Amino acid sequence: MAKVVTLGEIMLRLSTPGYRRFVQSDSFDVNYGGGEANVAVSLANYGHEAYFVSKLPNNPIGQSAVNSLRKYGVHTDYITRGGDRVGIYYLETGASMRPSKVVYDRAHSSISEATIKDFDFDKIFKDAKWFHFSGITPALSKEAADLTEAACKAAKANGVTVSVDLNYRKNLWTPEEAQKVMTNLMQYVDVCIGNEEDAHLTLGFKPGDTDVTTGELELEGYKNIFKQMIEKFNFKYVISSLRESYSASDNGWSACAYDGNEFYVSRKYEVRIVDRVGGGDSFASGTIHGLLEGKNFKDALEFGVAASALKHTINGDFNLVTIEEVENLVGGDASGRVQR
Amino acid sequence: MAKVVTLGEIMLRLSTPGYRRFVQSDSFDVNYGGGEANVAVSLANYGHEAYFVSKLPNNPIGQSAVNSLRKYGVHTDYITRGGDRVGIYYLETGASMRPSKVVYDRAHSSISEATIKDFDFDKIFKDAKWFHFSGITPALSKEAADLTEAACKAAKANGVTVSVDLNYRKNLWTPEEAQKVMTNLMQYVDVCIGNEEDAHLTLGFKPGDTDVTTGELELEGYKNIFKQMIEKFNFKYVISSLRESYSASDNGWSACAYDGNEFYVSRKYEVRIVDRVGGGDSFASGTIHGLLEGKNFKDALEFGVAASALKHTINGDFNLVTIEEVENLVGGDASGRVQR
Amino acid sequence: MAKVVTLGEIMLRLSTPGYRRFVQSDSFDVNYGGGEANVAVSLANYGHEAYFVSKLPNNPIGQSAVNSLRKYGVHTDYITRGGDRVGIYYLETGASMRPSKVVYDRAHSSISEATIKDFDFDKIFKDAKWFHFSGITPALSKEAADLTEAACKAAKANGVTVSVDLNYRKNLWTPEEAQKVMTNLMQYVDVCIGNEEDAHLTLGFKPGDTDVTTGELELEGYKNIFKQMIEKFNFKYVISSLRESYSASDNGWSACAYDGNEFYVSRKYEVRIVDRVGGGDSFASGTIHGLLEGKNFKDALEFGVAASALKHTINGDFNLVTIEEVENLVGGDASGRVQR
Amino acid sequence: MAKVVTLGEIMLRLSTPGYRRFVQSDSFDVNYGGGEANVAVSLANYGHEAYFVSKLPNNPIGQSAVNSLRKYGVHTDYITRGGDRVGIYYLETGASMRPSKVVYDRAHSSISEATIKDFDFDKIFKDAKWFHFSGITPALSKEAADLTEAACKAAKANGVTVSVDLNYRKNLWTPEEAQKVMTNLMQYVDVCIGNEEDAHLTLGFKPGDTDVTTGELELEGYKNIFKQMIEKFNFKYVISSLRESYSASDNGWSACAYDGNEFYVSRKYEVRIVDRVGGGDSFASGTIHGLLEGKNFKDALEFGVAASALKHTINGDFNLVTIEEVENLVGGDASGRVQR
Amino acid sequence: MAKVVTLGEIMLRLSTPGYRRFVQSDSFDVNYGGGEANVAVSLANYGHEAYFVSKLPNNPIGQSAVNSLRKYGVHTDYITRGGDRVGIYYLETGASMRPSKVVYDRAHSSISEATIKDFDFDKIFKDAKWFHFSGITPALSKEAADLTEAACKAAKANGVTVSVDLNYRKNLWTPEEAQKVMTNLMQYVDVCIGNEEDAHLTLGFKPGDTDVTTGELELEGYKNIFKQMIEKFNFKYVISSLRESYSASDNGWSACAYDGNEFYVSRKYEVRIVDRVGGGDSFASGTIHGLLEGKNFKDALEFGVAASALKHTINGDFNLVTIEEVENLVGGDASGRVQR
Amino acid sequence: MAKVVTLGEIMLRLSTPGYRRFVQSDSFDVNYGGGEANVAVSLANYGHEAYFVSKLPNNPIGQSAVNSLRKYGVHTDYITRGGDRVGIYYLETGASMRPSKVVYDRAHSSISEATIKDFDFDKIFKDAKWFHFSGITPALSKEAADLTEAACKAAKANGVTVSVDLNYRKNLWTPEEAQKVMTNLMQYVDVCIGNEEDAHLTLGFKPGDTDVTTGELELEGYKNIFKQMIEKFNFKYVISSLRESYSASDNGWSACAYDGNEFYVSRKYEVRIVDRVGGGDSFASGTIHGLLEGKNFKDALEFGVAASALKHTINGDFNLVTIEEVENLVGGDASGRVQR
Repeated sequence: MAKVVTLGEIMLRLSTPGYRRFVQSDSFDVNYGGGEANVAVSLANYGHEAYFVSKLPNNPIGQSAVNSLRKYGVHTDYITRGGDRVGIYYLETGASMRPSKVVYDRAHSSISEATIKDFDFDKIFKDAKWFHFSGITPALSKEAADLTEAACKAAKANGVTVSVDLNYRKNLWTPEEAQKVMTNLMQYVDVCIGNEEDAHLTLGFKPGDTDVTTGELELEGYKNIFKQMIEKFNFKYVISSLRESYSASDNGWSACAYDGNEFYVSRKYEVRIVDRVGGGDSFASGTIHGLLEGKNFKDALEFGVAASALKHTINGDFNLVTIEEVENLVGGDASGRVQR
Repeated sequence: MAKVVTLGEIMLRLSTPGYRRFVQSDSFDVNYGGGEANVAVSLANYGHEAYFVSKLPNNPIGQSAVNSLRKYGVHTDYITRGGDRVGIYYLETGASMRPSKVVYDRAHSSISEATIKDFDFDKIFKDAKWFHFSGITPALSKEAADLTEAACKAAKANGVTVSVDLNYRKNLWTPEEAQKVMTNLMQYVDVCIGNEEDAHLTLGFKPGDTDVTTGELELEGYKNIFKQMIEKFNFKYVISSLRESYSASDNGWSACAYDGNEFYVSRKYEVRIVDRVGGGDSFASGTIHGLLEGKNFKDALEFGVAASALKHTINGDFNLVTIEEVENLVGGDASGRVQR
Repeated sequence: MAKVVTLGEIMLRLSTPGYRRFVQSDSFDVNYGGGEANVAVSLANYGHEAYFVSKLPNNPIGQSAVNSLRKYGVHTDYITRGGDRVGIYYLETGASMRPSKVVYDRAHSSISEATIKDFDFDKIFKDAKWFHFSGITPALSKEAADLTEAACKAAKANGVTVSVDLNYRKNLWTPEEAQKVMTNLMQYVDVCIGNEEDAHLTLGFKPGDTDVTTGELELEGYKNIFKQMIEKFNFKYVISSLRESYSASDNGWSACAYDGNEFYVSRKYEVRIVDRVGGGDSFASGTIHGLLEGKNFKDALEFGVAASALKHTINGDFNLVTIEEVENLVGGDASGRVQR
Repeated sequence: MAKVVTLGEIMLRLSTPGYRRFVQSDSFDVNYGGGEANVAVSLANYGHEAYFVSKLPNNPIGQSAVNSLRKYGVHTDYITRGGDRVGIYYLETGASMRPSKVVYDRAHSSISEATIKDFDFDKIFKDAKWFHFSGITPALSKEAADLTEAACKAAKANGVTVSVDLNYRKNLWTPEEAQKVMTNLMQYVDVCIGNEEDAHLTLGFKPGDTDVTTGELELEGYKNIFKQMIEKFNFKYVISSLRESYSASDNGWSACAYDGNEFYVSRKYEVRIVDRVGGGDSFASGTIHGLLEGKNFKDALEFGVAASALKHTINGDFNLVTIEEVENLVGGDASGRVQR
Repeated sequence: MAKVVTLGEIMLRLSTPGYRRFVQSDSFDVNYGGGEANVAVSLANYGHEAYFVSKLPNNPIGQSAVNSLRKYGVHTDYITRGGDRVGIYYLETGASMRPSKVVYDRAHSSISEATIKDFDFDKIFKDAKWFHFSGITPALSKEAADLTEAACKAAKANGVTVSVDLNYRKNLWTPEEAQKVMTNLMQYVDVCIGNEEDAHLTLGFKPGDTDVTTGELELEGYKNIFKQMIEKFNFKYVISSLRESYSASDNGWSACAYDGNEFYVSRKYEVRIVDRVGGGDSFASGTIHGLLEGKNFKDALEFGVAASALKHTINGDFNLVTIEEVENLVGGDASGRVQR
Repeated sequence: MAKVVTLGEIMLRLSTPGYRRFVQSDSFDVNYGGGEANVAVSLANYGHEAYFVSKLPNNPIGQSAVNSLRKYGVHTDYITRGGDRVGIYYLETGASMRPSKVVYDRAHSSISEATIKDFDFDKIFKDAKWFHFSGITPALSKEAADLTEAACKAAKANGVTVSVDLNYRKNLWTPEEAQKVMTNLMQYVDVCIGNEEDAHLTLGFKPGDTDVTTGELELEGYKNIFKQMIEKFNFKYVISSLRESYSASDNGWSACAYDGNEFYVSRKYEVRIVDRVGGGDSFASGTIHGLLEGKNFKDALEFGVAASALKHTINGDFNLVTIEEVENLVGGDASGRVQR
């Protein structure tokens, strides 16, 4: 198994139990999570030596975030302690036509105010095989953007494969700001994950003219954009999950990928949702695991889609499934029969 | 925003958590609710100056009921304190083909034994725009029926629009008793809400002969009855929600209305149910809000249907949604995508 | 109502709340259950004088298991106290394509180490009308297999009808071991319940050649095997539930039965699952109740299927429904409308 | 072990968890209890064949009350089903100088409206050894007072020992009403349990002049009254618990008894309170058990005091302790060391 | 009853249940509270027309804070909506020798960034009788200090009595900063509440030389400082609670006050602690209520001490006791006997 | 900080919430713990590189035990996976004079059936500074006793200091069996922890004749035995905690130690108990930490006593306190004042 590194923010997630609205709830369920932390947990869970790089305050809430990662086997040696606060997001889980609602309270978190001096990236990337970050980290602050680039440079200098999940967050920056920072960062990236909207908002891509029949339109748009992306940035793979939001309770879930040569669309799952937060991260981590294991990009994609379909049935940000469980689903058993 | 008044009973609702049966449950979730209280909360929630008129005992359970209303901005100045008890209903939430079960224990509640002397209706209706009651209140007792008529009279005397939700409750009276009392009360009513069955049981209406094809039959029946109702009572609008009970977990939900001229059927929602108690009240209050806002009756109906579709996803009797959330759904976004 | 007896193991069931995975859960919901205990509870619930025969340790956990049965009216006079431990099964409830997971920790339980001397079967079966056991009990140990045969003999000697639920458990024995023991026990059995797979694994039956169209294939296979079973063991009825596992959240649920003459397939229910553990036991007990009540085997089967469809909506192993609720569903009302 | 009978009301107890005030609580813990039901559970728990006689509505809440008794081995065969409702009491547990608060909502319960025709007392008292009731039952209503006397008569006719716990409840009747009814009932009583205040309010006794030093004053008052009681009613024993309320969290707990000859004061326990409701009932039942076992009245009293001291550490109305646990405490081990 | 106004911050309080440490807790209990909000709730609870002035973000968490106040009858009309976040404090409840732990995360809250333009103080103080603030509000930021002074000026201009609770918070400012701001604000204050340490840190007072015996030393120090305070600032009363921290579970609780003439020490209570946060605020509000009711300062102090002794038994920041409950305790009944 | 190793069993602890008795509880709180695991967690918590050596089944319950250790920073690399089950202990928390109750169900656990081949002790003890085990581990089985000796030998061969906590468990072996095994193991031990009773039961020591006054008797007995122990086994230190069980709610807690020269008795704490399980382990680990840090044996003892006094206020087996918190208490601050 490989040493893998992710860089980003881990937040305290405060969610209302049992579909309660915020005003109704006299308790919050406590979880910790965030894009890159979620990827680190998944990769640790699949057996990799996963390191999460971040900064957390030196108080019991910061310690609780650290412990939440250690519990699932993530190495926390490279988490710097200091700064003022753990970022928070409040979550109210929707149902049927009522959407889930996220209220962010993440400004001034320790990682958003961290600087390059807080980390020794050469030590961090020594012997590493993979580095993953998302479009959220550089959006946190100017310092965080610099930090992200420093990490990317050190990763490339150490021969580490780099992946990004574009993940546009409208509360953190504008498309213009995003495109300026993200376009620059793409030079370090080998594997780019992100849907059409993210590609548009963070990198400025638009689907060209297409004259296909309507049913195929969306996928043609993806293919068209993916081609442009590989042409411009020389990515090895461009990958996207495909979510069909029927309601807050039921989604269709699949994915597509392009290797510069072949455009591949995965099997599609119909998911009854328990908790869909972290779905994209579980897709990224599943696919990364597949690639790390040497699977071809189509098999890696199928692993990623199945892993993230399962995530939708699991509470919290983290995707707590075993390789065996994912493989069973890839192998075709979606019957949900009791396993004794 | 307008001063609105509702009159009725607020009960203590004791429900089993997590689909437990009564015999299994060693705790009950505590909510307070009741038809007209639920309407008051919704209207307060939409920004109206809502007053709930009732009587509650001068003990901590009565106070808890008052506080549950105050929390959501309902004015409780006109609630008289006294009498013996807060009425109770026990609720067991069903699933799939197992129906939800309600056990009433509401006899001898303070409001059921209240008299006209407990309230100063001229003060209550001063400057009010709307008065709403349901067929439950006059069914509670002879005194409560007198109280309801006194309120109706005072409302009309103060130029207040009056709406009723027919709401037949078989545990409280017989159809004969209901028709005697309710037929008399209809003289004060401007807007009548109630489905075919309620119109039959509380007012004695029956659909006439219809020779349409089967698919249209139900709606033709509604239209037929609505016409008779307007002819007899000169209502401004007759309105009904339309529930298709596929199971305790999934329902179809829409509505129809008639203004004496046009029969209008709303958009239909497929709802995955979290808690359907109070669905009818949220429909009434949503529609009343639309009418208070000056919407035409079709737009008011669409607001009412969307508001009440959302109610089915919310725990408790109260419909805790914002105008913005309802408008989003009316505007067509039922995808349930996470709102960040 | 009749005196009925079941023999088997009652286990402590430790389940994670709210779809949590084992590693996430810092509490377990506590229930007690097991095939034959579940049947006893159902039969007591339908008004029969039900006795559960087992052995439980003389400690507070054993007492809690006893109390869980007494609560629902099961007679516990014939439960011997002694031995080392209450068997345990851990349960994680699945959703969508993630299956429920059961981890057994039942070895060395008191009943698995009980011997014939622990029970006075002649006393137990005096005046009894029905004896039920499952393929789990004889699989627990050599002693338990002997115990089961002793019970069967005493039952027959007392003129008691005997039913079995074949229930193959792969963690307890191999098909070879199962077939040796179970084939012998079938001589005492009047009513045999078990699906195609159980019939194959515990009794060695295989569907013969069939040349029907595909849609009918499964049912033809059942019919074919049922005929063989009746020919070989002279059962009065052979019965099986038919589960279609669409996912861990939704199943199709029906049943079929054969009386040596007519092959009957029941109505099919589409169930949204709350808790499917004990579904088979609730089917067995519902059908047994029907037969005890003197219904013909088709009506008994419909009662059993409806009862067990309802079980899927109830937490815990026990099927806590009333005869009236089952009859309502048999009568066609699956709308799940609120019962007030 | 002996057949024992108690007659009274079992109520639904709705208590706030964790010292919450009523207005703060969005859930209630559910227990069932009531003076005579609590005594029946204790006696069943000590191994007696205990029957609780009452009336409960034929709905799921009534059934839940029945099941709560069956769970602990109480025979419920003599509970008549019918009437309107289960009586309720709301409980808020106090701490330190804040007292626990009980809000009763018990009017119109099934037992308060039951009549003599609901019960076959000759059958009920056949082969019984002991009958226990409290001053609460005859206070419920005129019918309940008649019922109590009918039970007493039948008990005496069947040679059954009768005990009473005087238990004055100011919400149910006045001292004048109480004294009229209770004085009459005393003719049937063998063992009278009740403190000075109860003896005063329900039977009109007052301590005579005493000229002892202050420290001994209270006990002298008890002795004085006990003598008067035995003289007037020819009780075999008069017994009282002695509570010193230091605060809602800590109490001193002991008892005294008089057999017409010797006045005996028990050992005193310092109790840290978990739940003191039912403390008096656990004292009565412990003492009754001691007498039923043939202990002398002093040893019976010590058993009763120790049993009820333990009750203060147990949630709910019922005293769920074993004989062995009580005997250990009587034997002097109050150290609370972990029992492994 | 009087119109009273308080100005300050209301925070989201996230506390671990059942003595859990932060790292152990997978849920937080949700309360809202803060010094001046707590005072407003108490005063509303005692029947005053209480207004809480603050600023809260226009999101569901801000709304939940508003609703928490409305529930207890506080008027929220003067709460401005806007800004970024609700301040947070995390709370871990201690026991025995383990202290409770508070982690603040309140920087950048809406009220800390509010300005004078957010409020119309002349409207706010129209017809008001009392204004209360604490040393926390001006410590939040420069703007908040200005806001506090503006409020004080408007209060005095409207003839409103002003009270302060000195409440030094070391995380918010240094003694030097505090003394500069607070000394200036004291010119508006009529009633000053604060212990010796607060008087030292926020106002710079030190006890002079005292040559009394040791036992009396502490109270002499208080008296000495109180005299200096009245001499310098011309307060009408100086008041302080007196806490003796035996452990996190048990405290002694009393108070003292000086009116420039007489130094009075209250009765002392021994409290078993359920939740001591907000103890000081409940003391301030109880005493203010007493003064508003026209009690002499000694009786007002006794009311304040009894009210706040009771607060220590109540979960959350708010002191949810009735006047009657406080008066009972003042009257001497601290026995904690069950109130039926 | 040092590499430290402990060897033993980690069990699933199932405890009833809120003082509930086993029969009352429909949920269990889930913790993992066991003597040596608890010591490992404490030492990791104090910053040491702590390794826990054990065997756990390769199922989700075993994984949950592993994760519970990882969460608190314990290294789990030397935990072998395999075998049948995780041992269980059921815990009911007592109060006042009702003792806590433990029901063990630990037979056949993976570690009790592990063999020497499951571990590579030379690798395990490489670079280690301290090895700790308890009298529980060798009591589990013959294999476990062999395992313990093998570990001791390897430890000594690697120059590792060895400590033992004698911890006699009467459910696991007799004094005769214990003495045979434990006496042999003592040759490897440097630091022996255990009270008078353990020393008697596991090693056969008895206090000699002592003619001191009664008040000093117990401590003289300890001193006498400690001398004998050092004479026989040449321990560097003999150490014991001293518990005074006033009740299940309150204990006195101190300790004593002897270094062959000086007998030292620590400060005594009066503890209000939240959870006393693991108290002895927290004492052992605190003292070991002190010795590892180079403190003299008296200061190490004071650290151990303070650490374990705090443990009594913390839920679960693990002592989750920081060095700073312990040092504060050692420094004399037991006031429990809120830390902000």
